[in-house]
Amino acid sequence: MIQLSRAEIEQLVTVDEGAVAAVRDAYVAITDGRGNVPPVGHIAFPATNGDCHIKYGHIAGDPIFAVKIAAGFYDNPAKGLPSSTGIILAISAETGEVRAILNDEGYLTDLRTGIGGAVATLALARDDADNVLIVGTGIQARYQSRALAALAGRPLSFRIWGRSPEKTAAIVAELARDGLNAAPAADLEAACRAADIIVTTTPSTEPLVRSDWVRPGTHITAMGADGPGKQELDTALVARADVRVSDMKTQSLGHGEFSHACLAGLIGRDDCIELGAVLAGTTAGRRAAEDITIADLTGVATQDIAMARTVLERATATQHGRS
Amino acid sequence: MIQLSRAEIEQLVTVDEGAVAAVRDAYVAITDGRGNVPPVGHIAFPATNGDCHIKYGHIAGDPIFAVKIAAGFYDNPAKGLPSSTGIILAISAETGEVRAILNDEGYLTDLRTGIGGAVATLALARDDADNVLIVGTGIQARYQSRALAALAGRPLSFRIWGRSPEKTAAIVAELARDGLNAAPAADLEAACRAADIIVTTTPSTEPLVRSDWVRPGTHITAMGADGPGKQELDTALVARADVRVSDMKTQSLGHGEFSHACLAGLIGRDDCIELGAVLAGTTAGRRAAEDITIADLTGVATQDIAMARTVLERATATQHGRS
Repeated sequence: MIQLSRAEIEQLVTVDEGAVAAVRDAYVAITDGRGNVPPVGHIAFPATNGDCHIKYGHIAGDPIFAVKIAAGFYDNPAKGLPSSTGIILAISAETGEVRAILNDEGYLTDLRTGIGGAVATLALARDDADNVLIVGTGIQARYQSRALAALAGRPLSFRIWGRSPEKTAAIVAELARDGLNAAPAADLEAACRAADIIVTTTPSTEPLVRSDWVRPGTHITAMGADGPGKQELDTALVARADVRVSDMKTQSLGHGEFSHACLAGLIGRDDCIELGAVLAGTTAGRRAAEDITIADLTGVATQDIAMARTVLERATATQHGRS
Repeated sequence: MIQLSRAEIEQLVTVDEGAVAAVRDAYVAITDGRGNVPPVGHIAFPATNGDCHIKYGHIAGDPIFAVKIAAGFYDNPAKGLPSSTGIILAISAETGEVRAILNDEGYLTDLRTGIGGAVATLALARDDADNVLIVGTGIQARYQSRALAALAGRPLSFRIWGRSPEKTAAIVAELARDGLNAAPAADLEAACRAADIIVTTTPSTEPLVRSDWVRPGTHITAMGADGPGKQELDTALVARADVRVSDMKTQSLGHGEFSHACLAGLIGRDDCIELGAVLAGTTAGRRAAEDITIADLTGVATQDIAMARTVLERATATQHGRS
């Protein structure tokens, strides 16, 4: 059995070609019948302001399946601990033996979410889109920016908007140190009006981006709404979009960004397509330069499987972490 | 974080006083409102004849919660591997940090199932019951016999019935080596007619024990039916019983031994009580010497939590397995 710490996993996988290919394939697997993704398990700890999600599944043909246990305890920062923790088990799909314990502390989730957002954004934005607005100043604001810059293949300019000027300045400085062309956005409305690409990364429970702030041709990737009650986009904007893309329709319409417009009757259950089908080329994504496209990514276990498999393959090849 | 192998865990916990108290409390926790037990997760691997169950939950007040991943791959024995594997993670219910990885390979499940069966049997059988029939020759036949012998506080005689005379002889020899009074039962009907206590431990999918073979005053503990399609007892026997006891009513009536009689309309959803209430003394179990009592145990995550907590407490106290 292989055991790896976060630091070891960070050495093995990053925004690299193999990881990107694995994440792309993980989206396709949801739509082509290979992905077996049971409902996400959940348990809440109201007394300690925490909860835990268990994502698991298998991609047909993969030698392993993965079980990811991700906990959020929101009083942790006051104790000097990160609010999110995570561990992934890679288990043989042939014998049930535990092949690897990846004590990644949430790194692989952050990484695959960053790569996934960038893959969706680049699949749906105009080829000449270069003004990127990142809404939010947290971990995913960083991962989304870095993955997008790494994968775009062309220079992008990043504007970062957050409620806190201090946090905004901190991420701008970090991204600039990484060589990104990054600057703070003072006003969200003006920044939306100027953007070709908007990536929302907040835990907001009310719409931040309004429909009349978004110009034709814009692509929006909404990363924040991953559970009931969360919302970053105006339902009118969701309804107005020419193309709505989900990582997994049932999740997007059930508890993701598209759920609010669906509940309000503004869109129907067939009014969105799945990212895997766009990436596989079986369904068209953006059709015209003036299309408004929205990708709503809620996170699916196939991505965790893909990351676990990638880490395991590389650890095996390099004899890392054998116990 | 503590990590323990099966061998280390076997040294730390067995059919002992603390483990029995923990298992009893785990049953009570299901009925007194402390147990938070979400639905069991499940994923199947038809191509490799395997499946995996994820049991998880929390007992209010416990410092940890547990996630158990148990896989069964039924072609493993041909590869020289056990068909069942298992691993339990103990996670802080205060911070979400992984406190322990118990690579018990299913030992704790076998142990808590054995202890649980013995606890149920002794709570419901007559005080003078001493003729025990064990139906089945597998791992639980062994655990049930040993736990019952250890906890009864009086001499018991064991008859073992199985389809295979070789397997029956093997378990009888093993139990005799352990000092149990054990002998093979040649005929299931005759053995049932002579038994005070019947413990069924098979993966049977059709009834083995018939109602007219069971005399008044008998107690039956049915361990085998832990999923859809499994059945060890005649539905007429279940209907005839004076007292029906479940570890968890929803599981017993949903996919356990009692489900068949319930589906057939022979018993209603209120025609069984929960073991925890009997153990806590809030509900009567056996009321008369001639009562037929049946306990149907399907397995509940609170027991896994109880075992994980017990192991963790002892490992911490003895500085075992620190990494």
